[in-house]
Amino acid sequence: MAELSIIYVGKKPTMNYVLAIVTQFNNNVEQITIKARGKSISKAVDIAEITKHKFIKELKYQSIKLDTEVMEGERGQSNVSSIEILLTR
Amino acid sequence: MAELSIIYVGKKPTMNYVLAIVTQFNNNVEQITIKARGKSISKAVDIAEITKHKFIKELKYQSIKLDTEVMEGERGQSNVSSIEILLTR
Repeated sequence: MAELSIIYVGKKPTMNYVLAIVTQFNNNVEQITIKARGKSISKAVDIAEITKHKFIKELKYQSIKLDTEVMEGERGQSNVSSIEILLTR
Repeated sequence: MAELSIIYVGKKPTMNYVLAIVTQFNNNVEQITIKARGKSISKAVDIAEITKHKFIKELKYQSIKLDTEVMEGERGQSNVSSIEILLTR
């Protein structure tokens, strides 16, 4: 089993990501990073908080990093904020 | 002048908050906390990143805290995620 895992937050419902994280921790993954950009950042925080308060009480936020990524779009470059939340149990 | 300040992120445009933060740092405020709940969390991260990358290069994220707050609504209680980003220069 992998010991490190990354979850990219997109358009799926919040609980899909929560259940994916809970399942991975139950399969001996030791660290999971939640990554999100732009409007999905709020959902990433929801996912982390729901996982911690409803499912895995001993969950810890090992680190929370904010960054800015440059995106290539049809109208040229644009900047988008991102978050990385590293979870350990 | 106050040395500690709190900015609550709401419905105003992102740049309003950025300029408020830059102004306060220029008036000898030493620490500013950005607080946001729910969908405004993404905007809070934008505000922090724009302030750091476009205006105050030496800005540091002293701490980033995630939490869940209980809100009283017409249909009873609901949980909402929150973020607190502590900025220092």
